[in-house]
Formats: sequence, structure tokens, C-alpha cells
Amino acid sequence: MNSSFTFPFDISSSDTVRVIPLGGLGEFGKNMMAFECDDAIIVIDAGVMFPEEDMLGVDLVIPNVAYLRDRAYKVKAIILTHGHEDHIGALPYILPQLNAPVYGTRLTLGLLQNKLREHRLLDEADLRLIDADSRLDLGPFQVEFVHLCHSIPDAVGVVMRTPAGLILHMTDYKFDAHPADGRLTDEARLKALGDEGVRLLLSDSTNSETPGYTPSEQELERVLDNLIGRAPGRVLLATFASNISRIQQVIDVAERHGRKVGVTGRSMINNTRMAVELGYLRAPSDGFLTVEQMNYLPPERVVIICTGSQGEPTSALVRMSQGRFRQVRLGKGDTVIISAAPIPGNEKMIHRTLDNLFRLGADIYYDELFDVHVSGHGSQEDQKRMLELTRPQHLIPIHGEYRQLVLHARLAREMGIPEQNISVIENGQVIEVGPDWIMPAEVVENGRVFVDGLGVGDVGAVVLRDRRHLANDGFLLVMIGLDEETGDVIVGPEIISRGFVYMAEAEMLIEEAKEVVWDVLDRYESVDEVINHLHRSLADYCFRSTGRRPMILPFVVEL
Amino acid sequence: MNSSFTFPFDISSSDTVRVIPLGGLGEFGKNMMAFECDDAIIVIDAGVMFPEEDMLGVDLVIPNVAYLRDRAYKVKAIILTHGHEDHIGALPYILPQLNAPVYGTRLTLGLLQNKLREHRLLDEADLRLIDADSRLDLGPFQVEFVHLCHSIPDAVGVVMRTPAGLILHMTDYKFDAHPADGRLTDEARLKALGDEGVRLLLSDSTNSETPGYTPSEQELERVLDNLIGRAPGRVLLATFASNISRIQQVIDVAERHGRKVGVTGRSMINNTRMAVELGYLRAPSDGFLTVEQMNYLPPERVVIICTGSQGEPTSALVRMSQGRFRQVRLGKGDTVIISAAPIPGNEKMIHRTLDNLFRLGADIYYDELFDVHVSGHGSQEDQKRMLELTRPQHLIPIHGEYRQLVLHARLAREMGIPEQNISVIENGQVIEVGPDWIMPAEVVENGRVFVDGLGVGDVGAVVLRDRRHLANDGFLLVMIGLDEETGDVIVGPEIISRGFVYMAEAEMLIEEAKEVVWDVLDRYESVDEVINHLHRSLADYCFRSTGRRPMILPFVVEL
Repeated sequence: MNSSFTFPFDISSSDTVRVIPLGGLGEFGKNMMAFECDDAIIVIDAGVMFPEEDMLGVDLVIPNVAYLRDRAYKVKAIILTHGHEDHIGALPYILPQLNAPVYGTRLTLGLLQNKLREHRLLDEADLRLIDADSRLDLGPFQVEFVHLCHSIPDAVGVVMRTPAGLILHMTDYKFDAHPADGRLTDEARLKALGDEGVRLLLSDSTNSETPGYTPSEQELERVLDNLIGRAPGRVLLATFASNISRIQQVIDVAERHGRKVGVTGRSMINNTRMAVELGYLRAPSDGFLTVEQMNYLPPERVVIICTGSQGEPTSALVRMSQGRFRQVRLGKGDTVIISAAPIPGNEKMIHRTLDNLFRLGADIYYDELFDVHVSGHGSQEDQKRMLELTRPQHLIPIHGEYRQLVLHARLAREMGIPEQNISVIENGQVIEVGPDWIMPAEVVENGRVFVDGLGVGDVGAVVLRDRRHLANDGFLLVMIGLDEETGDVIVGPEIISRGFVYMAEAEMLIEEAKEVVWDVLDRYESVDEVINHLHRSLADYCFRSTGRRPMILPFVVEL
Repeated sequence: MNSSFTFPFDISSSDTVRVIPLGGLGEFGKNMMAFECDDAIIVIDAGVMFPEEDMLGVDLVIPNVAYLRDRAYKVKAIILTHGHEDHIGALPYILPQLNAPVYGTRLTLGLLQNKLREHRLLDEADLRLIDADSRLDLGPFQVEFVHLCHSIPDAVGVVMRTPAGLILHMTDYKFDAHPADGRLTDEARLKALGDEGVRLLLSDSTNSETPGYTPSEQELERVLDNLIGRAPGRVLLATFASNISRIQQVIDVAERHGRKVGVTGRSMINNTRMAVELGYLRAPSDGFLTVEQMNYLPPERVVIICTGSQGEPTSALVRMSQGRFRQVRLGKGDTVIISAAPIPGNEKMIHRTLDNLFRLGADIYYDELFDVHVSGHGSQEDQKRMLELTRPQHLIPIHGEYRQLVLHARLAREMGIPEQNISVIENGQVIEVGPDWIMPAEVVENGRVFVDGLGVGDVGAVVLRDRRHLANDGFLLVMIGLDEETGDVIVGPEIISRGFVYMAEAEMLIEEAKEVVWDVLDRYESVDEVINHLHRSLADYCFRSTGRRPMILPFVVEL
């Protein structure tokens, strides 16, 4: 790609908008886009992603915001499109670096406030409430919103009137004729924007591998109605704590069948309470069950909503499946519904949980066996409808792994958008939008910043490489004290090893390793040489005798 | 469960058969069953399973055969039902412990021989060829075979005539009216056995979550025909190296479209060659392409079959996707077909490979997008058909994770087998089959033995726990040399850490940790006390300052 100085246009020209993707393109999660024009930058979303298998010990992954930090004075707003973790989860880590006002709808800010409170950042944060009818005047950006239907209420798309034309950031959406909260994606408004002339559309690619429309929440309600209606005893339903729409459906269905509803699991309780307070969730008419009531009401009168749909080790459902959750004991006669799709990478943990639930003798309904979940993301037909309504000149597929972006682009070509008007790009690749051209510019700093415990960004390639090495084969450390003057060995050799062989049963191996050390000591004099050859000889010895390659740590002290 | 001494029957009675499951029940892979009667034990299959995420550094998992080892003199035969890894892969590790004759069909033994040769065990092994018509007289067991249709040719079910009645071990199968090699599952024989009266059936549960029949290989052939027929350039197809049937289909389809076929990847080349030699694969009429021909023939005349369908890091396809495979360079115009289902746990690796292939601009057809694979395992209707044909008195669902065993049992109940005649059991749970009773007996030693490098079984719970600890947070080791007489510190404190923080940027942390060490040294005298408190204080300090819990290794030497 061109770097900016080979570029024939004046990039600081005030009618140019620079689109700067910092997360969510070519990966699952940590969504973040920035838009820059003149002296203003608008950031849309700041999400986390969950660490992949090879990111050992990492708790969370957030976007690298070096580009924004270097221009913090220009950042006029961070706009949140909805309250899911992959859109708001990085804010507690990023806000201290940017400290711009944060705009969000009532539910989104409600979820964010819980999060900022935990990080003791609530007081400093400048949170500003918007709704679908708000208008913001942010320098060159005139910002408006469009209500979108998603698996959480109160989601909005962002409409930016810019000197380069109308830019739509349509985040996560689907076209559902019967959503749980009754509020449809605002198609009339999307069509009106299309009539006005859309210069650039950014649109969700998550489900571009799935044909058809994403089924309506109403179809799911029928399934739940059937399952809960005929369940002989207690019903337990696991879903994401942020899936307020699903929770609402379960409450509605439960009431219809004369059942009371309880919620359990910390995040589920917090979110439910907050959503009820803000008016996004209609609580059961006589409130939620207490733990006592969950256990002492007749089972056929009880529905319990909990976390754990991804097999998360500390979640309520997983602890129940292992008999480690004191508030609820599961067994024969209970019905468990897992109402969520597996996030790729979680399959094994989910299967383990399912197997444990089956061992308890409960009746289990889950994704692979039964349609107990509908996605919050639009499928191919939803994506086409978005294109039909908005008729953009140019498309950037966002939110998805690389193949999903490509498939979204393929769909757009089939809809008549010329190939050169579709930018399949990845994080960091800046796109410049001028009044009569759209072109790639330079690649800016981007990537993944790891959160591990209290550390943000201090675990990098070296630490991870060491963790992977230790994880596979452990380490073997040899300590030797040499007389500074004579070079005689006066301490050791002592050998410590963990994760390599079981020390208590590897006496012979340790003795032989010491022989290797003595041999090196006999052959070399200088400490540097000794260390160097200890490293090589011990590595060889370990591989020859075990087929493994532990990390070798020679430690020679002169006394 | 009862242990044997509370059991009211004489278990050594010569008309009792003990069914001893040692692998594959409640897990995916490492299939192994034993049948014991009087002084004879027959073992069926000896498979591996791939390590799960938390089995760090482990290469393979094999069954624990302590029960068989203790009775090695009784083991009359190891019978292999087919040549897949989860049925034969553990033999190189288990054969040295048991050294019994190994029975298998021609293709199965061909695959096994390759494996034993690599382990230098071929000369000692006593391999005995069988076919579907063979009969073996193994003491109290009269053994016959039934041809079964699976995703590898030459698979057989095992029929045992025993003093307790007819026992069928029906391993992996499906009912396919049009298999690639034209040989159907022998339904007439299954029905005849059913007429005779089957005391106990053991039957595959892998696909018990899937309704209907598993589609025929013929349906897949139509899909391949269509894709290969219209592909504009080169076609690359990835599947398991053991999927000889699929390889045959691709060869057939390619010839029909005037394309030549090449194979690449070590295991694919070895297996193809062996299967052609043994007559299980019809090679293309003018042989396989050389590497040169793959590259210099017009692309529209070429099909290449390779490994890598699971995203295995060293496979041909994965190296191609990263541009690291010199023999074949992929790009625009190429068509890639991934003809295999993801093994649970491999999804992420597969997705990463797909994304890289998309980045190269190739056209990709894969499981989530297109029906380019059919399973080798029967679905619910196949399982029902097996029950209908054999009409067993008793069923033990085998081969599957726990939920799959339960769902198979549920199916059998719907087919009219009473609940008490179905044993949903896990590894180690012995079932005793007498002439007029079938009951659970004791649980015998069982479990997972880890192969890591050259070590078989030496990596256990302690080593794995250490590896997990090191993987998450690394270690911090402190070394101190004390004067034996005065107790003064004469060496150190020296701190070494890996995988915890990036040492080069953590000077302050290391200095503060040393302060913690000095503080402990000031307060305590005895070496034991010092070690004890170093451990606690350093752990506290690390957690307070980083939120992490590295393994703390205090190392105090008296000089």
C-alpha cells in the first residue's frame, strides 16, 4: 500500500475524511474505528476480544491506540453503538489514555457505568447520553443516529455528514420483524439516507457465511414456549448476561406458563437489575425469585436464568454442572437450555459442560441438537437489504475474520457494487475519502495489546514466547558457584526443574544431567564459555534422553 | 458401582464374559475395549486421542492398559477394526507391553506397518491378516467379522460367539448405498446374526446428535463433480491422509474432467502409495503427477490432494496458506476445497488457515459454507438401522463423549429396548455378561497416559500442573547464598524470571522484589523459615504489583 508521502492529494485538505480501522477487521472482536477530518477525530466503539489459545495467561486483548494517543487533543468523541463487550470492553483501559467525552444510549451507558465503577474510573469519565434522535455537532462531523435491531436493545448506527459526503457506520444489526423489545431497525430512515446519497457504508460481516435472513427472535420465542411449556420440572436457561432481549423473552414465556423467574450469577444479576431500573427489561409482575424461592417453590413453577453458555469455568452453569454451586443443585427432572452460539474456540469447554450436565441426568437442549438460539447478526440477506436500502457508492466490510469480510464483499459485487468500490482491508489500513475519490493511504500503528492482571501492554512477544516454551516443556535450571580465584566449583551443581519431568521420579536423569555439567566444567574455563556450553550440552542431553526441549537456564556465580 | 467382592456371582465362572472398556467411552478418541472369559482376553482396537488444550506439551494420549499388562499372559489377540488413528495409533506404545498377535485386514495392517516401521517395532510384531470371511478360534471366543462401510475401506465389525452368547462390536460404521469403493455394510449378515439372537451389541455413538441418515458418499461426489468441473484453474483438495475413500472419489472425478492428480504432504504420499500397492486405491490411469508437473501443466488440468484439513501447523495446506510450501504456490484462480469436518478443538486453527487462503485470493469451499464433506459415522437413522437389524437384548453405546452415549441410549429406548438393558458407562466400568444376566461389576484402572517426546506416561498431574502455572504467569526464582556459620548473605539475592514480566523493562520490579527478599532475611534466621517466608512474601508482592501469580522458587544455599 502507498505510504502517505507518495500520495498525490493533500491529505490535510479539509474536505478529506480519513477512515482509520483500529480493531475488528480480520479478527473476531475488539471493534474500533476512527474517522479523522481536519482537527477532529471521532472514535466509534472500543471493544475487547478474548485471548486466543496461544496468548497464554492473557486476560483480555484490547486495540493498540497509539495513533489516537499521539493525537489525543483531536479526539472529540468516543461513540458507543451498543453495550456488548466487543464494543465497550476496552474503554476502562483506553479512557485514561484519551479522556474524550463518551456518547452512548441509556442502556449502553448503564452497562458502561457498571464497568467503569469496577475500575474506579466513573468519576473522571465524561459520559453523555444520546438516543436515536440525537444530533451532535463535532467540528467537521455532523453526527446523527439510526436505531438498529441487535441482540441487545438500544443499539444505534452512526450517520456522519462530512465534507466528503455521507458516511454510515452500521455496526451490528439485523432486520427482525418481531424483535423482543418491539423496536425494528429503522428501515425508512436507512432508505431516506440512501435517497440522499451515501458516499461510504461500513457494515457488519459477522454472518456473511450464513445464507438467508437471520431468523426472528419470535421464532425462538415459539421454541422456548414449547420447551418451557412441556418441561416436567425446573427450567434453567443459560445465555450471555448482556443478552437483555433473550432475558426478556424468557421472562415473558415463563409468565405465560405460570412460572416464576430467578436470575443467578453475578454479571447476570447486575445487568438484569440495571436493565430493569433503566426500563429496558420488564421484570416479572411479582419480581424475581430469591435463592430460597428457587429451591423451595415446586420445580414446575420455576425458571432460572444464568450465565455459563460458553462453558466459562467460574460461571454459574459450569459450577452447577460440577455440583459446586450451592444456590442451585441440578439433577434428574431438570431441563437445561443453552441459548447461545459457541464463540469459536470455546467448543471444548462447552462440550465438557454439556457432558457434566448429562451426567447429572438433566434434559439438555443446546445449539447442536436444537434451535435454541438465534444470532443477533444479520445473515447474507440482511446484509443485502442494508445495501439495497442505503445504496452506497463505496463499501468497507467491517466486523469479521478475513474470510467473512471477503464473503461480504463478494455479496456486494453480486448486488452491483463495482469491485474497485469495495475496500476489503485489515486493521491499520487507512482509507481516505475525498469528494470524488476513495483510496488507500498509509498503514498506521495497530495491533493487539494484552491485559494480564494489572498490566496493560507489558506482556509482549518475549514473555509470551517464554510462556509457550515453559508450557510445552518446562525448564531446567543449573546453578554453580565457582571460586573467583581458582575457578573451582564450590557450590553445586544444583539442578532445579519444573514442568519438564517429574522430579521425584527422575533422579537418574538429574544425576546424568549433573554428569553433563561436570563434563562441561572440565572442558572449559571462562565463565562465558561454561555458560554457553552448559546451554548447548544440557539441551542436547535433554532432547536425547526425553525427546523434549525444556528451557535451559545456566546460572554461574563467581564467589 | 459394586466392587467385585460384593458381587453375588462367581466371576471366574467359565460362562461369564467381562466387557472391559479402556478407552473411547465419554471422550473423543483412543478407542479400546477388552473382552475377558476364563483365561482369555481379546482386545479390540488401540487408538490415540489428540491432547486437549490443558494437556500442555503433550503429543498424544493413549489408554492406560495396566489391567491388560497385569494379565498379559491372557491376551490372545489384539483385533483392529480399521486403520484410523483413533483405532490403531496407540499400538506402537502398547505392543511392547502386551506383545500379543495383532489381527487386521489388509489395508489396516498396511497402515499399521508404516507406523510400526517408524517406531522400529515391525520385526517383533506378530501381524496376522484377516478379511471379512475369516474365522478365529481364540479359546472361549469364536470370532468372525462383518464388513462395514466407513470413511476408510476394509473396516470390519467383530462378532464373538461366547459362552454367554453372541456379542457384536460394531465399531464405526454407516449405511451407505453408494460408498466410494462399492462395498456396502453387510446388512444381510447383520440381519442373520439378529435372527440368531444377539446377547449384546456395542455400537458407535459419534453422530448421535445428528438426525437422519449420514448422506452417501455419492452425494458428495456430485458436489465435487460440480466444483471441480467448473473450477477455472488448479484445484487443491485437503482431507485426512487416512481417508482413502475420499481420495478415490477425487481421482475419479478429476479423470472425468480430464484433470491429472498429484498428492503432496508426507503422510498423504505414504498412504496413497500403500493403498495403491494393496489394491485399495485405483491410481489415475497414467499415475500421479510429479511436483514439476503440478506446476507446469496448465492449471485447469491439475488437481492436488493434500493434508491440512484440520489446520495442522506442519501440514502441506497450512504451509501453502502461509506461502511457506515451495512445491505449490497458491494464488488467485486456484480453487481450494477442504473436505473434512473440524475435530472439536481445531476450529480456531482451521479458521486461521481459511483466512490466510482467502488473503491469497483463492476460491475456498469449506464445511461452514458448502457441503464438501460427509461423515464416516452413521447418524441417528443409521444407529436405528443397526438396532433393527441386530435386535440385541442389551446395548452398550461406545465411541463418543458422554452426551453422545446418552443420546444413543435415548434412541435405543425409543426403539423399544428397555432402559435396564442399556448400559451407559464410561471407561473402566466392567460389565459382566452371564447366560441370563448382565450387570455392572467393579471399576478397573483406566485413564489417559500421555506421550511427550520419548516419554510414555512420565508426564503426569504434577508436571502438567506446573506447566499450566508456568504457562499462565511464568516463574520468579530467587537465589541466595548464606554463610553457613554467620548466616550472612554472601551471594545474591539474585532474581531470575521468565514468562512473568519482560525482564529488560522490569528493573524497578526486580529491585523492589529484592527489597522484599532483604526484608525477609532481616526478620528470619533459620533457612526453613526464610524459604517459607520468601515464598509467601514474594507471591504477595508479585500479586499486589502485577495482579499475576508467577511460580515462586526460593533457592537458598548455605556455603
